[in-house]
Amino acid sequence: MDAKTAIKTVMERNGEIRQIYWVACGGSLVDLYPAHCMMMAESMLVESGIYTSREFLLATPKKLGKTSLTVLCSHSGGTKETLDAAELALSRGSAVITMTHAPGSPADSDRWISWVYPWSEDQKTEVIPSGISLSIAAELLAAQEEFSSYDALMEGIRKMDGIVAAAKEKVRAELCDRFAALCQKHDFLYILGSGAAFSQTYGFAICSLMEMQWQHCAYLHSGEYFHGPFEVTEDGVFYFLQKSSGKCRPMDERAEDFLKTHTDTLMVLDALEYGMDAVDPAVRDYLDPVLFYAMNCELRSARGRLFDHDVDYRRYMGKVPY
Amino acid sequence: MDAKTAIKTVMERNGEIRQIYWVACGGSLVDLYPAHCMMMAESMLVESGIYTSREFLLATPKKLGKTSLTVLCSHSGGTKETLDAAELALSRGSAVITMTHAPGSPADSDRWISWVYPWSEDQKTEVIPSGISLSIAAELLAAQEEFSSYDALMEGIRKMDGIVAAAKEKVRAELCDRFAALCQKHDFLYILGSGAAFSQTYGFAICSLMEMQWQHCAYLHSGEYFHGPFEVTEDGVFYFLQKSSGKCRPMDERAEDFLKTHTDTLMVLDALEYGMDAVDPAVRDYLDPVLFYAMNCELRSARGRLFDHDVDYRRYMGKVPY
Repeated sequence: MDAKTAIKTVMERNGEIRQIYWVACGGSLVDLYPAHCMMMAESMLVESGIYTSREFLLATPKKLGKTSLTVLCSHSGGTKETLDAAELALSRGSAVITMTHAPGSPADSDRWISWVYPWSEDQKTEVIPSGISLSIAAELLAAQEEFSSYDALMEGIRKMDGIVAAAKEKVRAELCDRFAALCQKHDFLYILGSGAAFSQTYGFAICSLMEMQWQHCAYLHSGEYFHGPFEVTEDGVFYFLQKSSGKCRPMDERAEDFLKTHTDTLMVLDALEYGMDAVDPAVRDYLDPVLFYAMNCELRSARGRLFDHDVDYRRYMGKVPY
Repeated sequence: MDAKTAIKTVMERNGEIRQIYWVACGGSLVDLYPAHCMMMAESMLVESGIYTSREFLLATPKKLGKTSLTVLCSHSGGTKETLDAAELALSRGSAVITMTHAPGSPADSDRWISWVYPWSEDQKTEVIPSGISLSIAAELLAAQEEFSSYDALMEGIRKMDGIVAAAKEKVRAELCDRFAALCQKHDFLYILGSGAAFSQTYGFAICSLMEMQWQHCAYLHSGEYFHGPFEVTEDGVFYFLQKSSGKCRPMDERAEDFLKTHTDTLMVLDALEYGMDAVDPAVRDYLDPVLFYAMNCELRSARGRLFDHDVDYRRYMGKVPY
C-alpha cells in the first residue's frame, strides 16, 4: 500500500472528504497525533478529530459518515476497541484505513483499506505508522486543496532515517547513562513537550516508562506549565524536557528558562542539536515526534539495562484478564 | 451577557459559523473542554478545536477566519497568551468572545464580545465559565441546526447547583479525610477519568494538586489505562478514579474493575452516587465536570488543612518573573 493509492481509492468510493478521524489506543494513538496536528494547521477544507478508540465508540462524532475518512491503527491487529471503531465507521459509510503489523489479523481485512506495515529496529520512517499517517494526511491535502509543504514533508520523512541513526549514537553518548542514573535516584519524573511532539511526551510517559519500565512519571504540556504545574518545581524534582525544533519551540524554550533556575535536576533533549536543523522549518513540527520516539526507545533501554528490567517484559498486558 | 444574545450578535456580524475554537490556559482551558466535546459529538455543521493559548498562536489553524468563532477565557483578564490569541483571531476576521472575572481588564474590551463573570463559592453554574461555555455551544447548535438535547442541557445546568451543594456535604463526610491522609502516606498519585470529565482529571492534577498543593501526581485517561499505564499498578500505588455518569462511564468501570484487584489504595468518586442520576443521561457527560470540579475543590481544601498548605498560596505564580 502507498498513501497516494489509498487516498485515490478513498475518494473514488466516497467522493470529497470533509472529516478525518484518527482512532487508536496507547502507542498507536501516539503515532497518529502529528498527522492530526498537521490537518488542523494546514487544511482549509477538512476537519480533524483524534480519539482513543473506546471514546470514539461512546462519544461518536455526529458527522461520522460518507464524507469522513477514519484512520485507525492496531499494532497487534486485534485491539478490540479499535476493531469495533473500524466497524462503526464502516457502518456509518465512512472510508476506513487500518494500519497493522499483523497480516491476517482481524485488522487486516478486505472490508476496508488495510495497510500492513513492517516493524523492527531501523525500519524506514516512510513505512511505519508515524510516517504513513503523515503521508495519508499529505496526500489528502494534495488531492483536495493545495499543500505548499508537500515536497518539504516528503523530503523530511526520507531525511529522518539518517537523522535518527546519528541521533541514536549521540543520545547514547550524551544522555542515556545520566537518564538511567537519575531514574535510580528519583521515584518520579515530569516530562515536558509541546506541539505535535506532545504525542511523544505522552508516549514516553505511558508506553516507554509506565508500561515498559514501571517508572512513575507525569506528562505535561510546556505551554501549560506556567498555568499551574510549575508551582511543584524545586530542587530534587526531576524534569525531562523534549525541546522541539519547529514552530512550537518557543513554549519549550520558556519552560527551559524557568526550569534551569528552579530545579537542579533537568535533562533537555534539544531536537535542533539532534539533527532537525536539516529539515525544512515548515514541517519540523510534524517530524520532531519521529526523532523523539527513537530517543525514547534509547532512553528506556538504558534504564532497562541499569534496572535489569527488560523493556519487553509485561506483568498484565496479554497475561491476565482485563 | 447571555449566550443567546452573544450568538445572535456573532451571527449578525459574521454569518454562518463553521469552526469554533476554544482557547485558554490551565484552569480556564479546563472549563472549555466539555463544550468542545459537546460540539464534536453533537454538531453536523461546525468543527471544534481546543488549544492552549500559545499553541493557538504558534500552530494556528489555517481555517481561522470569518466563518470562525473563537471563545477564550482569562480569569485574571491579563493572561498574555490568551490576549494575543484574541487579537490574532480578531485580525483574521473571526468572531471573538472572551470570558473574564476582571471588569476593566484587557480581556474586557469592547473590541470583541466580553463576558465578565462573578467568582466566589456557590455561584450558580449558569453564570461561571463551565456553564457559560456549554450555553454558548448549545445556542450555536440551536441557531444553526437542531440540538435535540437543548432543553435537557439547560435544565441540567440549573440542576447542578443543588447537586453540587449536596455532593459537597457527602464528599466531606465520605472522602475528604481519607484523601488527605493518603496524600500524607504517598508522595505521588494517579488520577483517572474519561470523556468530557477528563478535563477535571487534568484540572485536579495541574491546578488543584500541583499548583495549589505542590502534590506530585499524574493524570490518565481511563480508556488509555489498559494500553500502557496499567503495568505500573500494584499495591502501595495510590489511584483516584473520577467515575463519570454519562456515556463514557464504561471506560471508568473497566478501569475500576482492574484497579480494585490490583492496588490496595484506590479511591473512587462515582458521579452517579453524587447526584448525577437526576440529570438527563443525554447530557450527563457534559455536566459531570461541574460536579468533579466542586469535588476537586473540597478534596484539595481537605489536603490543605491537613498539610497546613493554604490553597491560595503561590511561590511563583504572579511573584517571580517567568
